Amino acid sequence: MAAERPAPEPLPEDVLIADLFAPLAGEGAFGLKDDAARLSPPPGRDLVVTADMLVAGVHCFADDPADAIAKKALRVNLSDLAAKGAVPLGFLVALALPRGTPRVWLEDFARGLGQDVDRFGCPLIGGDTVSTPGPLTVSITAIGHVGAGRMPTRLDARQGDAVVVTGTIGDAALGLVARSDPARAAGWDLTEAERSHLADRYLLPRPRVALAGAVSRHARAAMDVSDGLVGDLARLARASGLAARIEAGAVPLSAAARRAAQRDSRSLEVVLTGGDDYEILATMPPGNVAPFIAAAAAAGIGATVIGAMSEGAAGAVEVLHDGRPLVLERTAYSHL
Amino acid sequence: MAAERPAPEPLPEDVLIADLFAPLAGEGAFGLKDDAARLSPPPGRDLVVTADMLVAGVHCFADDPADAIAKKALRVNLSDLAAKGAVPLGFLVALALPRGTPRVWLEDFARGLGQDVDRFGCPLIGGDTVSTPGPLTVSITAIGHVGAGRMPTRLDARQGDAVVVTGTIGDAALGLVARSDPARAAGWDLTEAERSHLADRYLLPRPRVALAGAVSRHARAAMDVSDGLVGDLARLARASGLAARIEAGAVPLSAAARRAAQRDSRSLEVVLTGGDDYEILATMPPGNVAPFIAAAAAAGIGATVIGAMSEGAAGAVEVLHDGRPLVLERTAYSHL
Repeated sequence: MAAERPAPEPLPEDVLIADLFAPLAGEGAFGLKDDAARLSPPPGRDLVVTADMLVAGVHCFADDPADAIAKKALRVNLSDLAAKGAVPLGFLVALALPRGTPRVWLEDFARGLGQDVDRFGCPLIGGDTVSTPGPLTVSITAIGHVGAGRMPTRLDARQGDAVVVTGTIGDAALGLVARSDPARAAGWDLTEAERSHLADRYLLPRPRVALAGAVSRHARAAMDVSDGLVGDLARLARASGLAARIEAGAVPLSAAARRAAQRDSRSLEVVLTGGDDYEILATMPPGNVAPFIAAAAAAGIGATVIGAMSEGAAGAVEVLHDGRPLVLERTAYSHL
Repeated sequence: MAAERPAPEPLPEDVLIADLFAPLAGEGAFGLKDDAARLSPPPGRDLVVTADMLVAGVHCFADDPADAIAKKALRVNLSDLAAKGAVPLGFLVALALPRGTPRVWLEDFARGLGQDVDRFGCPLIGGDTVSTPGPLTVSITAIGHVGAGRMPTRLDARQGDAVVVTGTIGDAALGLVARSDPARAAGWDLTEAERSHLADRYLLPRPRVALAGAVSRHARAAMDVSDGLVGDLARLARASGLAARIEAGAVPLSAAARRAAQRDSRSLEVVLTGGDDYEILATMPPGNVAPFIAAAAAAGIGATVIGAMSEGAAGAVEVLHDGRPLVLERTAYSHL
C-alpha cells in the first residue's frame, strides 16, 4: 500500500465560501459544502420566488461600501417578497467578481450580508462565485412563503380599489440626484440631517418585511416600487386591465423631499418617477384601508392612500396636481 | 370628467419580456406580468434549489450563438438538479445585457431557451433584465423536486462506496483546447466527426435529467462534474471526510478523447481535470452499482465504476495510471 497521500489545498473559491459565506448558511444548505440546497416549505404555505440583479455602476456606485452593496442586493429582493406578502425563507447569491477583488472587500461584503441575514431572518442557502472582466454583478434569488392562495399579484386589482403606498416616496431618487449633481441639490437648502436621510435611502433600501402579513391579509394587488411610482403603478394597472388616478399632493414625502419639491419644481417629477423607493404599492377594497394602516402603524411604518383604480385604458395613470393633470416626461426608470 | 387618457407605451424591458420570454412561462409565473412567482411543490417532495452564473468570455465565447449560450446557462443548472436526484420544476433567469444588444440576438437567446424549456420540461418562472457596461452575464436559479429526504449531497459518501460516473469524461475540455489551440488539436489526428463531437460537448452540455430518479434511488453522495473530475471528486471526498482512489484507465472516454489521449500525452490531464463535463459523479454501496448501471442504460446513458471511497486524509484523491500514482499539476478549473 502506498504511503498516505496528503489532501490537496482546496480551490480558492472553496476557501472563500467556507471562510466568509458558510457562517451565513441556513438549514438545508449543508454549510455550503454542497452546491444545491434542500428546502421543505412549511405545510399549508405557497412558496414565492423572485430574482433581482445589481450591476456596479448601474444600480449602485462601484465605490459604495461593500457591506452596503451586499445589503442593497439582498434588500431589493426582500422588498419584492414583502410586497407579495411573503415571509423570507432563504436566498441564493451568484457573484461575478472583477478580477483582483481584494479579500478585504469580500470580507466586508460578507459581513454586511450577514448583518441582514440576521436582521431579516433570511439565511443564505446557496449560490455561485465566478470572476468577470466586467463590473461587480450580484444576482440574488430570494424565496419566501405565504399562506396558500394568499399572494397578491399585479393582476388582481379591481375598479374602486384604493391605491396605498407605505413609507415615503422619492427620497432615494432625490438622494441619487444629490449625489450625482451636488450643485442642483445645494439649491434645495437641506439641513445636514435631511441630506444624509436622502443619501441613506438611496444607499440602503428599507424593505417592508414587517408588513408581509398585513399585505397578504388586506391587499388585492401589490408590488414594490422600484422603478418609479407612476411607472410601477402603470404596470400594475396594465396587468389588471385597469387605469388608475392618483393625487400628487397625497403622495407621502419626507421633510427633506418636501423641501426639495418646494425649492426645485423639477423635483416632483423625480419623486414620482425616479424609483429605488422599495416601498409597497398595494390596491385594496376601501374597507381594508383602515386595518392595513393600523397594522402598518403597529410596525412603525406609515401607509397612505394616494388614489384609486378606475376604468379606462389599461395602464393609463392620471396624476392630478392641484386639481390639474400633471404631464410627466417619463414614468419610470428604464432598465434597457 | 377629463377625456380618457391613453395608456403610455410599456417600458422597453416589459415589451421584451412580454414578446420573448412570456411564452416560456410556467404555471405560477402569471405570464411574467408579476415580478415574483408562486410555487406549490408536489406533496411529499423536497425542493432542491441551485444557482449557476455564466459570464461571456469566461464560461463561453462571447460570439457563441445566442441560442447555445441560453441552453448552456440553463443546462449547467439542470445538471446540478439531476445530480441531486431532482426533477426540474422551473427556473429564474437574471440577464445582464451589454448595451446595444440587438433584438435579434435576444430573439435567438429566447428561442434556444424555449427549446430547452420544452425538451427538459422546465418552465421559466421569473427573472430580471438589466443592462451592463460589461460582458453578457446570465444567472440562472433552477428549482426541482425530489422525494422527501432522498437528495444525495456531497457529504454522505461512505468508505467502500463505489465511485461511478455517467457518460464520457473530458470531451468538453478537449473541445475547448481544440478551439483555443487548433495547432495542438491537429496533432490528435481526429476525424471530422470526432472534432465536432468534442466541440459540441463544450458548446452544449447534456444534463443527465433522465437519471434523476436513478440517482435518488441508488446514490449515497452525488454531484455533477463541472470543474474537473479529480477536483470535483476531491470536493465530494473532503465534504464526506474521506479519501478516494480512481483508476485513470477506467474513466470512460469517447473515441475522440481516446485518440487524443493516445496521440498527446498531456491530454489525459485535460480529461481528468479540465471540467465542463456535466456528467454525474456518484458514490453508492457496491450492491447498488448494477441496478444504477441498468437504469442508466435504459435511458441510453453509460455509467462506469472508476474507483472507490477510502479512508485517508479528507479530500485526498489518488489517481492510478497503469498501476502507478499519476501526479497532476492541478486538479480542477478554479473560478477565482
